[in-house]
Amino acid sequence: MRDPGRFERDVLAPIRAIVGDRGIITDADAKQPHLVAWRDNWTGAVPAVVMPADTAQMAAVVAICAATGTPIVPQGGNTGLTGASQPHADNSEIILSTSRMQKIRAIDLDNDTITVDAGCVLATIQQAAAEAGRLFPLSLGAEGSCQIGGNLSTNAGGVQALRYGTARGLVLGLEVVLPDGRIWDGLRGLRKDSAGYDLKQLFIGAEGTLGIITAATLRLLPQTPASATAFLAVPDPAHAVAWLRRARKNLGENITTFELMERRCLDIAMRHNSRIADPLATRYDWYILVELNAQGDEEALRQRLLTVLEAGIEADEVLDGTLAASAEQAAALWRIREGAPEGQRLEGASYKHDVSVPVSQVPRFIAEADAALAARFPGIRSFGFGHLGDGNIHYNPIQAEGGDFAEWQSYLPEVNRIVHDIVIGLGGSITAEHGVGRLRIAELAHYKSDLEMEMMARLKQCFDPQNIMNPGKLLQPELLARHKAR
Amino acid sequence: MRDPGRFERDVLAPIRAIVGDRGIITDADAKQPHLVAWRDNWTGAVPAVVMPADTAQMAAVVAICAATGTPIVPQGGNTGLTGASQPHADNSEIILSTSRMQKIRAIDLDNDTITVDAGCVLATIQQAAAEAGRLFPLSLGAEGSCQIGGNLSTNAGGVQALRYGTARGLVLGLEVVLPDGRIWDGLRGLRKDSAGYDLKQLFIGAEGTLGIITAATLRLLPQTPASATAFLAVPDPAHAVAWLRRARKNLGENITTFELMERRCLDIAMRHNSRIADPLATRYDWYILVELNAQGDEEALRQRLLTVLEAGIEADEVLDGTLAASAEQAAALWRIREGAPEGQRLEGASYKHDVSVPVSQVPRFIAEADAALAARFPGIRSFGFGHLGDGNIHYNPIQAEGGDFAEWQSYLPEVNRIVHDIVIGLGGSITAEHGVGRLRIAELAHYKSDLEMEMMARLKQCFDPQNIMNPGKLLQPELLARHKAR
Repeated sequence: MRDPGRFERDVLAPIRAIVGDRGIITDADAKQPHLVAWRDNWTGAVPAVVMPADTAQMAAVVAICAATGTPIVPQGGNTGLTGASQPHADNSEIILSTSRMQKIRAIDLDNDTITVDAGCVLATIQQAAAEAGRLFPLSLGAEGSCQIGGNLSTNAGGVQALRYGTARGLVLGLEVVLPDGRIWDGLRGLRKDSAGYDLKQLFIGAEGTLGIITAATLRLLPQTPASATAFLAVPDPAHAVAWLRRARKNLGENITTFELMERRCLDIAMRHNSRIADPLATRYDWYILVELNAQGDEEALRQRLLTVLEAGIEADEVLDGTLAASAEQAAALWRIREGAPEGQRLEGASYKHDVSVPVSQVPRFIAEADAALAARFPGIRSFGFGHLGDGNIHYNPIQAEGGDFAEWQSYLPEVNRIVHDIVIGLGGSITAEHGVGRLRIAELAHYKSDLEMEMMARLKQCFDPQNIMNPGKLLQPELLARHKAR
Repeated sequence: MRDPGRFERDVLAPIRAIVGDRGIITDADAKQPHLVAWRDNWTGAVPAVVMPADTAQMAAVVAICAATGTPIVPQGGNTGLTGASQPHADNSEIILSTSRMQKIRAIDLDNDTITVDAGCVLATIQQAAAEAGRLFPLSLGAEGSCQIGGNLSTNAGGVQALRYGTARGLVLGLEVVLPDGRIWDGLRGLRKDSAGYDLKQLFIGAEGTLGIITAATLRLLPQTPASATAFLAVPDPAHAVAWLRRARKNLGENITTFELMERRCLDIAMRHNSRIADPLATRYDWYILVELNAQGDEEALRQRLLTVLEAGIEADEVLDGTLAASAEQAAALWRIREGAPEGQRLEGASYKHDVSVPVSQVPRFIAEADAALAARFPGIRSFGFGHLGDGNIHYNPIQAEGGDFAEWQSYLPEVNRIVHDIVIGLGGSITAEHGVGRLRIAELAHYKSDLEMEMMARLKQCFDPQNIMNPGKLLQPELLARHKAR
């Protein structure tokens, strides 16, 4: 394969000259955390993890990689779930990490923008916004360690996307190191800009395959200190959608979160966490967690929620419910939602789907997927839960109780195909917010039209003809070979 | 040049066979409205205006153009201000109009989406949404005749972009005929979709240079029947920004419109329209029109606005103001804003700038542009007005009173350069919402970095290597020649 002496001379030594000893890790133990995914499901090997101190260093390192044909794995907080930020096993790539680029470059309060390095941790940005009296609304489980560059590269969603949209909509400007090592300065703080193609859109959600995002100018929003949180029981997902429609009509501008949960989720959340309790006296099949946020009067907001809740009960959309009377009670309701994925993890090997369908199709999706899986795998336990408000359901079937683990593992591709066939049939997506990476690279090619795959391949060829930027992620090498730049 | 007999045989006859006699206009009088821009500033000639009845016809026509190298001018309502939708003078192109594609394909109320043909008039979509009890918030002067395909192709902004964003943020899916005549079906109705590159973003704001948008799935929003409208006097733009900051903190989620206006705008609006009156007893230098919209109680909303208004007076940010007590009073306040551009038009030849800067830089922009123009052109009258809330100022200087019209016309390129130099120096854009077209094609190349122009050229080459899709708009042919696909 590769001559290590020559690689040291042509690649690592020049990189070291740029980033210094602090900016390059070659020690096996120190490299390890960068090689393994958070959920331990992806791993690989690299000769070096490179951590530039700033954009100029990043660009210079990429230029060396471009000149020597060295493939690059861009990496942020390494919290992704699809293998996009881990290297392949063949030791052929280097990891280029944004972890040392953590400056908050500017906050402009009159423009409501914040400009940050790509390595800023999401929670740090949220906190900087809060200290300035503003809201940065992107919020997700990994926010304590994920980095904004990674969030933008996967177009992260999270629990408030219903109201604030995904990461894409929060970006006003980007700075990007292109695959040839040049720096594109698109760091603008404008809410309206029609001067040519909106190039930043290319890099958002591209999983590092078109360049490395090194900085971003992001929108800040007003804080919404008033909140109202309710936990409701509904007969089934169809009635949840009906009540959502009612709630949108009367409260839509204030709905921040609208989560659906099967009873089974509550059961295993309680089983694995003694701090989680059923807030309702009676057992029901399906639940909704809804949260409103506003700038105005909190009591008025609660009253409006109560009115819509009562109308829902009147219309038989809602069976029962509780409105949090304090921040503590609201936190207890949130613990149920947060305990659901944790409980599933502790319960056994689930197959995590990250699908979305039109909100109107969620009931049909859950019913069809439940039925198809139960018919094929008797005893399978499915857990319908997720962000109903934006159609993003984390549908995670778990093996039958007492079933054979290895056998179940061998079924996963089939489970996957059954669920995704239904999703695509309903006009949905096989990944709503986690992305493609390596996990879904074959599934993407399977479900997308040939034309769409060709358009993606042409875009990739246009900006990264050498295919050195995160190769083998998102787009299969065979596809790229088929659509070589003309 | 071209052999007309051959053109008839190879291009027009096959097109006629696809679209039928109803779908092709070759009569000079009937073609005329398609050749001239709304403001009469752009015109051209074509052998035919082609109006396919549906996407399949559109694709078949584009395929003929691709096979014969016939350049295409995509056209919607022909209301643009930059010459993007008018043909060149050399009679070499055909116009491909979406005007016969006017179906509302679907409304999904549980998903809050509407799917429409590209030829649907914006007001028709607004009305269909309203009849379904929803809001489609894109709103602009030409809404009675502009078509949604054109709105998306220019990423239209308008008066509510402050709250709802530009057209881009309202799009969930697109159907596009590519420059080779293939149809890309990206008509999805998903709020979260991370399955590969977000290809629809390419076509939004591309001014028809990468393909023809034939349909779109758009977001619908809750109606906000409660409103509160105020007209305020402020000492200067800096104080307007200070009060905007205060208002955002307390009312930000409900601010739909925040417009700034110089006294001069009010004067000429009143001079040219007797239905417009000064709502304040005293004369001031600068004004704000602010509108809030909400789902909750209207009186509570008005009270909240009043509180923030009084706090602004207390802090000397606001000098005076009036809160509309009825819909009629609100309409009277809006007439002032709407009368400002009309008054300018009647007052004389203005040079319309459509610039944006960060909101924080608006006061500096206006001050510097006023000073620079006054120094160079004594007596020049500038009219600072526009969407302060999103940094988009329509800065329109008019010749000195009694000045020579022809002389003033000859100065326009210099006026332009002076204003745009200041805008770019402040991190702004030379076009916030009108786009580039032919009007700003040279200015775009002048101000953008070589790298950014190269990236745009490569994108264009990637999808339209023949350059048949709206050639000579947005990107100069010389630029494309320099960056031929490798």
